[in-house]
Amino acid sequence: MLRDEVGSGLRPLSDLPAPRLGIIGGGQLAKMTASAASELGCEVVILERAADFPAQSLDTHTIIGDWDRPEDLARLAGLVDVVTLENEFIPSEALLTIERLGKPLWPSARTMSIVQDKLEQKRAFEAAGLPVVRFAAVDSIDSIRAFGLPAVLKRRRNGYDGKGNASVGSAADLVGAWARLDGDHQSLYVEEFCPFVREVAIIVTRSQRGEVAVYPLVETVNHHHICHEVTVPAAVAPSVAEAAADLARRALETIGGVGTFGMEFFLLADNKLLINEIAPRVHNTGHYTIEASHCSQFENHVRAVLGWPLGSPELVAKAAAMVNLLGEADGKGAPHGMKDALAVPGAHVHVYGKTRSAKGRKMGHVTALGSTPAEALATARAAARHIRFGDRT
Amino acid sequence: MLRDEVGSGLRPLSDLPAPRLGIIGGGQLAKMTASAASELGCEVVILERAADFPAQSLDTHTIIGDWDRPEDLARLAGLVDVVTLENEFIPSEALLTIERLGKPLWPSARTMSIVQDKLEQKRAFEAAGLPVVRFAAVDSIDSIRAFGLPAVLKRRRNGYDGKGNASVGSAADLVGAWARLDGDHQSLYVEEFCPFVREVAIIVTRSQRGEVAVYPLVETVNHHHICHEVTVPAAVAPSVAEAAADLARRALETIGGVGTFGMEFFLLADNKLLINEIAPRVHNTGHYTIEASHCSQFENHVRAVLGWPLGSPELVAKAAAMVNLLGEADGKGAPHGMKDALAVPGAHVHVYGKTRSAKGRKMGHVTALGSTPAEALATARAAARHIRFGDRT
Repeated sequence: MLRDEVGSGLRPLSDLPAPRLGIIGGGQLAKMTASAASELGCEVVILERAADFPAQSLDTHTIIGDWDRPEDLARLAGLVDVVTLENEFIPSEALLTIERLGKPLWPSARTMSIVQDKLEQKRAFEAAGLPVVRFAAVDSIDSIRAFGLPAVLKRRRNGYDGKGNASVGSAADLVGAWARLDGDHQSLYVEEFCPFVREVAIIVTRSQRGEVAVYPLVETVNHHHICHEVTVPAAVAPSVAEAAADLARRALETIGGVGTFGMEFFLLADNKLLINEIAPRVHNTGHYTIEASHCSQFENHVRAVLGWPLGSPELVAKAAAMVNLLGEADGKGAPHGMKDALAVPGAHVHVYGKTRSAKGRKMGHVTALGSTPAEALATARAAARHIRFGDRT
Repeated sequence: MLRDEVGSGLRPLSDLPAPRLGIIGGGQLAKMTASAASELGCEVVILERAADFPAQSLDTHTIIGDWDRPEDLARLAGLVDVVTLENEFIPSEALLTIERLGKPLWPSARTMSIVQDKLEQKRAFEAAGLPVVRFAAVDSIDSIRAFGLPAVLKRRRNGYDGKGNASVGSAADLVGAWARLDGDHQSLYVEEFCPFVREVAIIVTRSQRGEVAVYPLVETVNHHHICHEVTVPAAVAPSVAEAAADLARRALETIGGVGTFGMEFFLLADNKLLINEIAPRVHNTGHYTIEASHCSQFENHVRAVLGWPLGSPELVAKAAAMVNLLGEADGKGAPHGMKDALAVPGAHVHVYGKTRSAKGRKMGHVTALGSTPAEALATARAAARHIRFGDRT
């Protein structure tokens, strides 16, 4: 049993030097958020489903419980000053429990209810005049055909990293895509296939008073729908970067977002931007901000949910890059090649401390600064290529 | 009782994704070291004398015990891969316990035995041809008089932040200084009064293989013997900075130092440097490295004690500054003025999370980057002046 020798419970909230933050979920996003909170003097309590999660070494108290169970959410709320979350999959009805107890929750249950249903998210943006790819609700294979092909069929809820999406190139793909996403039992919608030339993304934090910190536009390279590499600033016309920043502000106002959000765009050949989707949480495309920004996406999230002023999202260097470290196979969580990676000058290696590796699982990342995005990317890749997760033991 | 719901003990070392680090002491230095270790995927176990210490929210296991008791050190050693420490006051005889168990300890008990006796430290440097202020062992008031006045009388052990020092300007001060430092029962030594024009300091990390990372020379401003402000790079001739870096390397070789060390110098009017003293641990004059260096003093310490390659000590900006946040009075540990401080753009506020404030106690610090040291200092001061610790409740 851990900490048993301390022999004391959590201190009362009134005795703490800073607010205590509750986080629903204990993965790497919670870990990096907890680290930022700790630097500001805050304690953190994590609600997770099972022990041995990345954020565990950074919390002062762990609640093992289920995100879907209002009782467990209420237990978390009872121990902390403010509650936040690290994923978008917690049912907004369950989140209402926390607000009904009078405990601040950011993003709010209302924001979460809009964002976590991707169809509702798109409807909200469209109603606010924000550019999104053409979309429609579907309830049958026929309705997809009526929408027009090629298209992308998606689940309304609980999709991430490409899970829950299926491309429908032609009528021959229709039945297979419908079956794969379990259209008979899951709510789906369809989007026009978007001929983008590049994927770009932006991190934006909004405070309870409506103050907004917009980070620079980044370019993302995805493999198999998983964010793999990020470079910043994106090599786009200044007008595109400004347009993206403006869309990010307006999107957060539209959904009443408080906290840090990640927003992905399609950039078209005519330099037009379409909002792909928004994530109501700190985001993989913003991990570079730990080293490259005056105030990281994690610290700004903590500041926002605690009602504190936001920090500067400006870069401390001319450019930066981030490369994800993905598991190559199932196995132990220990990285191979750590020493070689650390020997690369200027590479910042982050290891999340997951007990087990799995193919494609996010196990860590490497960030580097540079005078150009290409230079930074070369440094980050030089370190990342040494590291392998997935010892078959 | 904390973490009781996890219901499991510490995982066996062989199941961990990275080495587990033991730290003797749980103050802010341990907290910042633990944060760097966590980023690299490592777990941390802390040995502290009582609960509610700054590093507690960042460790995976706490041992409440006494640094002087070999049994408690052995308990720590049994749980971790490598042991390190955050202060120089642990008796080297007790530290030998850890080495005798075959557990790596860095800095070694031998290094600690030299450094923690300031007279031995000076003798070692003198024997290696490194410049130190003239000094002598003393065993009586007469022997101080024979050394010559003015002088500074010091305890050989356990002095810090000016505690354990007494200036002896003239013969009239002799009896008072001797009594104040309890010369009848404590081992003392005496140093020539040094007419320095400026105090400068340097952080240096040395690996087990002798690889060395030397950070830039900084200027320190001390009030009442407590480090108060640090600016980097120091406004000195390049030859002075080079000489300091060379002395730092040679000093660590002399004492066989492994890990991060803080080294303070007197700079004389003729640009000559004298070694004032070395601390065998991460140091207050190196806190700026968290934001301002590619690899912080804390991460490099972790890398060194784990036998990993060292990271780059170069600055990511042209200049940086750090201002300590000291308690103004006894009281609760909560900072006043946090929101105003966070509203200063570019200021990085660190709050250590101590439960109680005391006059002069180190409660946090503020770091800022800038294009000049003066600009960075202005930013850090602008934030620091808003924060007050010491609510009389």
